[in-house]
Amino acid sequence: MVTKIDHLGILVEDIDAAKPVFEFLGLETGAIEHIPGFGVEIAFIRVGESLIELVQPVEDESSIAADLDAVDNDALLHHVAFRVDDIQTQLDLLHAADIPLADSEPRTGAGGSKVAFLAQRASNGVRIELVERKFEVTFD
Amino acid sequence: MVTKIDHLGILVEDIDAAKPVFEFLGLETGAIEHIPGFGVEIAFIRVGESLIELVQPVEDESSIAADLDAVDNDALLHHVAFRVDDIQTQLDLLHAADIPLADSEPRTGAGGSKVAFLAQRASNGVRIELVERKFEVTFD
Repeated sequence: MVTKIDHLGILVEDIDAAKPVFEFLGLETGAIEHIPGFGVEIAFIRVGESLIELVQPVEDESSIAADLDAVDNDALLHHVAFRVDDIQTQLDLLHAADIPLADSEPRTGAGGSKVAFLAQRASNGVRIELVERKFEVTFD
Repeated sequence: MVTKIDHLGILVEDIDAAKPVFEFLGLETGAIEHIPGFGVEIAFIRVGESLIELVQPVEDESSIAADLDAVDNDALLHHVAFRVDDIQTQLDLLHAADIPLADSEPRTGAGGSKVAFLAQRASNGVRIELVERKFEVTFD
């Protein structure tokens, strides 16, 4: 079951260069975390019950680096992530309904979360991610 | 002051065609509303404390129609809207800080809200909108 927007993924060339506009709006940015499985570094920004995830590709072979190369901007509103309570069950339901998945099994995301993407074509080009977390992201 | 993500704007060619994947995830879609000042029809989907706004251009001269024409997909994750309590004060603060604005004064958005966009270059290409609402969006 989807309970909230977990985070928005914004793909950027440089996390430090992307932060000021959000900080000017009074939003707090957390520490940078390296996610080896995706070839990226990320930093979260808290907005109400949700997060914005600034994502900077740090390995050239990252598929995410290619997404950023495909646009003219220095940043890209890249995906919307829905919080779910049981990601494997949700993936199995989607698969049974013939909704195409990029990940049929969860991968490891930021903070040890379990994450999986639907296929981009599943929602007309908007990338949808599912996230199951044992612990909320903290900023301390 | 930003209090939460008010909504995500997803630009689509056809609202009815875009709805099924969200409804399969258990999310509820509201009625379609015409927004003359933007040349679009919209429908909201509730996700936790936030909304997803499906936006379909219905007038060819809409600048939003051009945004959709510029991408290969049938849909585009287009903007992130932050809820603020006093939009004019926030715009004045941004202007005083030399942060470029697309709207220096609020325009009328869905449900009689006051909305304004920062310039796209203000955040490296990610479109940020500010929203002030007197009433929450209802689905009844």
